[in-house]
Amino acid sequence: MSSGSDHVYMARAIRLAERGRYTTHPNPRVGCVLVKGDEIVGEGYHRRAGEPHAERNAIAVAGARAEGSTAYITLEPCCHHGRTPPCTEGLIEAGVTRVVAAMEDPNPQVAGKGMAQLQQAGITVEAGLMQLQAEALNPGFIKRMRHGKPYVRCKLAMSLDGRTAMASGESKWITSSAARHDVHLLRARSSAILTGISTVLADDASMNVRLTSQELGLDEGLQTPHPVRVVLDPQLEMSPAAKMLALPGKTLVLGSDDHPQRTAALEAAGAEVVLVPPRDDVLDLTAVMAQLTARELHEVMLESGAVLAGAMLEQQLIDELVIYVAPHIMGDGARGLFHLPGLEKMEDRLELDVTDLRQVGEEIRITARPLYRQ
Amino acid sequence: MSSGSDHVYMARAIRLAERGRYTTHPNPRVGCVLVKGDEIVGEGYHRRAGEPHAERNAIAVAGARAEGSTAYITLEPCCHHGRTPPCTEGLIEAGVTRVVAAMEDPNPQVAGKGMAQLQQAGITVEAGLMQLQAEALNPGFIKRMRHGKPYVRCKLAMSLDGRTAMASGESKWITSSAARHDVHLLRARSSAILTGISTVLADDASMNVRLTSQELGLDEGLQTPHPVRVVLDPQLEMSPAAKMLALPGKTLVLGSDDHPQRTAALEAAGAEVVLVPPRDDVLDLTAVMAQLTARELHEVMLESGAVLAGAMLEQQLIDELVIYVAPHIMGDGARGLFHLPGLEKMEDRLELDVTDLRQVGEEIRITARPLYRQ
Repeated sequence: MSSGSDHVYMARAIRLAERGRYTTHPNPRVGCVLVKGDEIVGEGYHRRAGEPHAERNAIAVAGARAEGSTAYITLEPCCHHGRTPPCTEGLIEAGVTRVVAAMEDPNPQVAGKGMAQLQQAGITVEAGLMQLQAEALNPGFIKRMRHGKPYVRCKLAMSLDGRTAMASGESKWITSSAARHDVHLLRARSSAILTGISTVLADDASMNVRLTSQELGLDEGLQTPHPVRVVLDPQLEMSPAAKMLALPGKTLVLGSDDHPQRTAALEAAGAEVVLVPPRDDVLDLTAVMAQLTARELHEVMLESGAVLAGAMLEQQLIDELVIYVAPHIMGDGARGLFHLPGLEKMEDRLELDVTDLRQVGEEIRITARPLYRQ
Repeated sequence: MSSGSDHVYMARAIRLAERGRYTTHPNPRVGCVLVKGDEIVGEGYHRRAGEPHAERNAIAVAGARAEGSTAYITLEPCCHHGRTPPCTEGLIEAGVTRVVAAMEDPNPQVAGKGMAQLQQAGITVEAGLMQLQAEALNPGFIKRMRHGKPYVRCKLAMSLDGRTAMASGESKWITSSAARHDVHLLRARSSAILTGISTVLADDASMNVRLTSQELGLDEGLQTPHPVRVVLDPQLEMSPAAKMLALPGKTLVLGSDDHPQRTAALEAAGAEVVLVPPRDDVLDLTAVMAQLTARELHEVMLESGAVLAGAMLEQQLIDELVIYVAPHIMGDGARGLFHLPGLEKMEDRLELDVTDLRQVGEEIRITARPLYRQ
């Protein structure tokens, strides 16, 4: 039985989890609140991989007062030995008597086992409180666990009349500093930024996060993340002098044709080069997704031109669209947002579910989820 | 000196004025509140042309209690004999001792004369309280008075990726009933609906208000308005069997070439046919605007295809854009919203000021004001 105060504490745990949104990769964002009577005796969140989990941080704050408390956790506690010992053991040792988890571990092979272990130790357990909000913390982690694929957020920019002539991956099209800032926040929460070679060649794009840890609101000791830059480059046309190769963070170049000299030059410049099978003159996007999943790059920001965005959409690989609409009229003769040659009739159109709508600086930001037909 | 309570009463007068938004044409929407001490002793709004003005309605409610009261009026009271006697006389006779008007009469030839007449009668007068909100009540009336031109609101519809292939004036493109309802509310507040012959030929468009007086929230005795339908039809190609000619309300067909037989047939079917000068193979839009102004059709809804919308925008005749964005992706190869052949370079783009953003049913509605270069 959950009560109103259960919601309040879980909401607090979710807010705590959000403090790790830029830094926990590849781990999930998790928050934990320990409550005894009407008092919060400890709370914490997972800061980054290798550091203690949220439960351990909360227990450390509570000390002896954890005994007899209820733990509100945004995710089912782990019960296996990873980089840190299992959290279930920590909760049992601390004497927690009730555990409320917002959701089960999304990995179908472990789901429920952590809760079962707690229950066997005599702890009252409940799961599912505010599950939707908790799932929204970790779309990438959950999609990887449940479907073995990355969660892809596709960023686009256009004028109010749908013109994208300058929308070439980089956000030069976006005019207000508030919207540019917003794009960098989205990049910062991504494990990888995915783009095509044409965008890199056109703009010498950096595809990095240009915000300080202070601008990201990070707690002490946490640094601005460097999402992996992933460039789809079938013929390995990328220049070893490309700006992004000199920036902090990794660059992964995915090609299809073997060019030993180009590979060597790119590797010497710091890139990792991997070949994947081709498909339709470009890369097999399923193979690309598998490469990302194998590297635990599960929350991916796609910033590309219309061809790659269209192919990703056509293959139902995009989970979320974030469209920045600049308040300009450019007239017709525009380049489209998505190149979709197979889409000709009205009944073929792809419907969307608009999940968020707001003004960001001068821009309008529309967030939507494609409703793919099965 | 205006006080906080002055704002409260004027806000109430503005809300009263809004009750006439569908029915006062060609008169302005006006509200009036009479306050004595801390008590509202009377209030009213202008319901429709030919009926008493807001001030007269408020005085009728107050009766003898109007004496010594303050009148809050959204527009400077009239001082001339029109269809009804001047309101200044009514206020003086009723013994009102203070008049607060939100704005002066926008007609430069009379602005301030009503207030001066009241002042000469010993009444304390103030003007300008909540002027912006009051101006928003009557964009058409004010534009006609100040500039001799109609206020044009351009309705457009597109998919989220800017495709308008089916956006042909009628709102068939708009998928949700909430957004269709919204379009009919905008039509209902317009004096005229302006479209091109291609839209009429393509859809046999009705261009009427399909809402009952109840759905419009009209007070007793007020009926659903019938905005004048204005069709730009250079060669008088409209069929006398066109659906709109059989509907309540007038249809004005503006042509450029004299076709006596076609004119006679259209007139026999109920249309008014007027010839205006041609320009660039279509009609001289300045002459079209002059025709509307001469008929006091000052709040105009433009529902057309890209060619007419583009020409109107290019000639800086559009005051407001209302864009319904349907949550669909249609792919590229789209028809543009505005046909603007002269707009080729980035620096030529037309900037907009987004004044409203909201979800209407499934659609996103963006309202914006073009920021024309002088």
